[in-house]
Amino acid sequence: MKKMMFALLAVTAAGTVHAQAQPALPDPATTDPTSLQLMQGFPPPANRTIRFADGTYYQFPKTRWSFSHIRELVPTANVWRGTGPASPLPAAPMALDTLSFLDDKGQPTTWAEMLNRTYTDSIIVLHRGKVVYEKYTGAAQPYLPHSAFSITKSFVGTLAAMLVAEGALDPSALVSKYVPELKDSAYGDATVRQVMDMTIGVRYSENYADPKAEVWDYGRAGGMAPVPPGYNGPKTFYEFLVNLKKEGEHGAGFAYKTSNAEVLAWIVKRASGKSVATLMSERIWQKIGAENDGYFQVDSVGTESGGGGASLPLRDMARFGEMIRLDGKFNGQQIVPKAVVDDIRKGADPADFAKAGYPNVPGYGKGYSYRNMWWVSHNAHGTFDARGIHGQRIYIDPKAELVIAKFSSHPLAGNMANIPLTDRGFMALAEQLMK
Amino acid sequence: MKKMMFALLAVTAAGTVHAQAQPALPDPATTDPTSLQLMQGFPPPANRTIRFADGTYYQFPKTRWSFSHIRELVPTANVWRGTGPASPLPAAPMALDTLSFLDDKGQPTTWAEMLNRTYTDSIIVLHRGKVVYEKYTGAAQPYLPHSAFSITKSFVGTLAAMLVAEGALDPSALVSKYVPELKDSAYGDATVRQVMDMTIGVRYSENYADPKAEVWDYGRAGGMAPVPPGYNGPKTFYEFLVNLKKEGEHGAGFAYKTSNAEVLAWIVKRASGKSVATLMSERIWQKIGAENDGYFQVDSVGTESGGGGASLPLRDMARFGEMIRLDGKFNGQQIVPKAVVDDIRKGADPADFAKAGYPNVPGYGKGYSYRNMWWVSHNAHGTFDARGIHGQRIYIDPKAELVIAKFSSHPLAGNMANIPLTDRGFMALAEQLMK
Repeated sequence: MKKMMFALLAVTAAGTVHAQAQPALPDPATTDPTSLQLMQGFPPPANRTIRFADGTYYQFPKTRWSFSHIRELVPTANVWRGTGPASPLPAAPMALDTLSFLDDKGQPTTWAEMLNRTYTDSIIVLHRGKVVYEKYTGAAQPYLPHSAFSITKSFVGTLAAMLVAEGALDPSALVSKYVPELKDSAYGDATVRQVMDMTIGVRYSENYADPKAEVWDYGRAGGMAPVPPGYNGPKTFYEFLVNLKKEGEHGAGFAYKTSNAEVLAWIVKRASGKSVATLMSERIWQKIGAENDGYFQVDSVGTESGGGGASLPLRDMARFGEMIRLDGKFNGQQIVPKAVVDDIRKGADPADFAKAGYPNVPGYGKGYSYRNMWWVSHNAHGTFDARGIHGQRIYIDPKAELVIAKFSSHPLAGNMANIPLTDRGFMALAEQLMK
Repeated sequence: MKKMMFALLAVTAAGTVHAQAQPALPDPATTDPTSLQLMQGFPPPANRTIRFADGTYYQFPKTRWSFSHIRELVPTANVWRGTGPASPLPAAPMALDTLSFLDDKGQPTTWAEMLNRTYTDSIIVLHRGKVVYEKYTGAAQPYLPHSAFSITKSFVGTLAAMLVAEGALDPSALVSKYVPELKDSAYGDATVRQVMDMTIGVRYSENYADPKAEVWDYGRAGGMAPVPPGYNGPKTFYEFLVNLKKEGEHGAGFAYKTSNAEVLAWIVKRASGKSVATLMSERIWQKIGAENDGYFQVDSVGTESGGGGASLPLRDMARFGEMIRLDGKFNGQQIVPKAVVDDIRKGADPADFAKAGYPNVPGYGKGYSYRNMWWVSHNAHGTFDARGIHGQRIYIDPKAELVIAKFSSHPLAGNMANIPLTDRGFMALAEQLMK
């Protein structure tokens, strides 16, 4: 149990739970950070104190506090909202808590139970642009950015696709055109499009259960995980990336690797001449009429983590999702070109996705693909989504005119532990709304 | 020269320059961080990279970048602006650049020259509530909080005085009533009022030129300065404070020590049950209609630095100053009780202040006092101000109906290096406005 409780570095949304055992999970109600008085008091008592350097920030249930307080633990770069008014998010509340459906074991459950069982910190549901449901628990607050984990990738992918649409980024070019430093790495003979759709052959393991997995080197390099005394490894994301080795072929199939998103973030910066945080502020956050600033974790030289380092306010993440649902038009302006949204929704080749070998369950089923760092279902509703490990989500169901943004702090670092249940709830809600 | 360039830990606004020699200072125009391309590029070239761990963040001229980017270097706690609209700051520009006056050497100079010679990053001038002058140079931007250094203290002092006015904090009580942990420290037999007015007898040196000065231990403890390998000293502000020893008597005279502000911040938290960042958001930032969030540097357990850790947006600092000028009433509401502003303006006993032995120059002259962590001139204009080392300022001249907020990155860690010149300019402007 103790080993499971230390959920390890959480920067990816890998679909598999790898070799991790799935012991009985603690009752979420007993892990509420407010009841546990985590980080309460001046100073908090020793056993309720959360630090970065000793790794406590990433131990469950302390994550239920730290995921809403990342900036108090590490350096960050702001995603500025601008000075205009927040765009309206009209409320039209619906009683969803009792909505019933069958869970991933075929047992009856409800919306409220699903939220609890997936360790939900906050959730907002928009139907036809109106807020029909909104809830915050524990440490979560509407004004507190929450760790978005790999939802970050979908923002980087969207920004990259916008640069492509403008002609500022050539998807058929080699990565080394934009980042010559990667010429001798795994990415030396890869195209930008292969990076955007994660069909890269690179030796990079996301297996948290393996202490030698590259995901650990990545975290230490980027300041996302504490380093041991005398640490002599790479000290920045870039120092880590340039040393990645090729494994397999590019373009041979979808393989989810966080390193691809970091490389794409690097490409985006070189192509635009701006940091990802600045670009996201100028192109998205200021334009959607965000209520609050977001931020990125940065490494020791100020490089944002494009793989998993964004912390975002829930309501603004919903505004972003609604803008995407509306073909890029929101708050009175075209923010993302319709062609970019079309390209995401059209997805990539499901045959490439199938090679990743996910089980055929909601959220990963047959016919899925991965495009511009979005997960595309190709199902009857045309749903597509951004997802982060521990249960983060932007879920867009065009047919049901539904957008859901959700933050969680699930104890297991693997989306297979929460998406199959979560998505049955989302799909039941969609059916309910379409009645 | 090289030694001077490394300006050391900058957390106080001590008036004296101590034993520091005053070599010829570099031409400010040659230290513009944009021209120097500091932290530009992905990644920036090695010699233009600024890091926390190696101390480069606090080397002049790199400070000209880092003072506007503190959150990208260290963990921070947000001072949230709320979700309402920003309060209006109407513009009524005046041509001040050519305003001429005699500098502190008796030589003719101008407003524009004074700003340049004091390494000003940004400045805003309000006359009767209208913006008559506003300027940003180098890395400074209206939306970027800038390190406020010891201006932080005046916010903590104002919050403490508000709690006193409400009866939530007893200024005549012993410090240990609120912070029993300090019972055996220098502060064990001090009153809250003595802390608020800095008439504390404590062994705490602000002399940056002395590597054994307590200001260094303080910085390392609070995560404001990097620690050497194997560091075994205090790891939090509180661990540092509880070990401070008494030196001299309390109440015997004014003695500027940053530790007093840290102790007051601790008292404020215990008396209010809220963090300083939360209290500042709820009581001030949300109420003045701030345009942008501010933030505090925090130590390894999330404790804000109340002595010098605030970074604030310039325009919102001006709103705060204007609110204080208007007896606490601003943006349609009474934000700070008039009694608190009266108490600040009335000041403390100049006889206490005189014991600190400052030279009789503008900003420190005869008749000054220090009250609720504000500097009070007792001059004919009744000016009073908040000040931070390296040239930070909130300057309020009630008679001239003038409020100035200013951020600088002066290479010398001593206010005597910039205030005598700066204040001659401020006083010349006041006279001009009153014509």
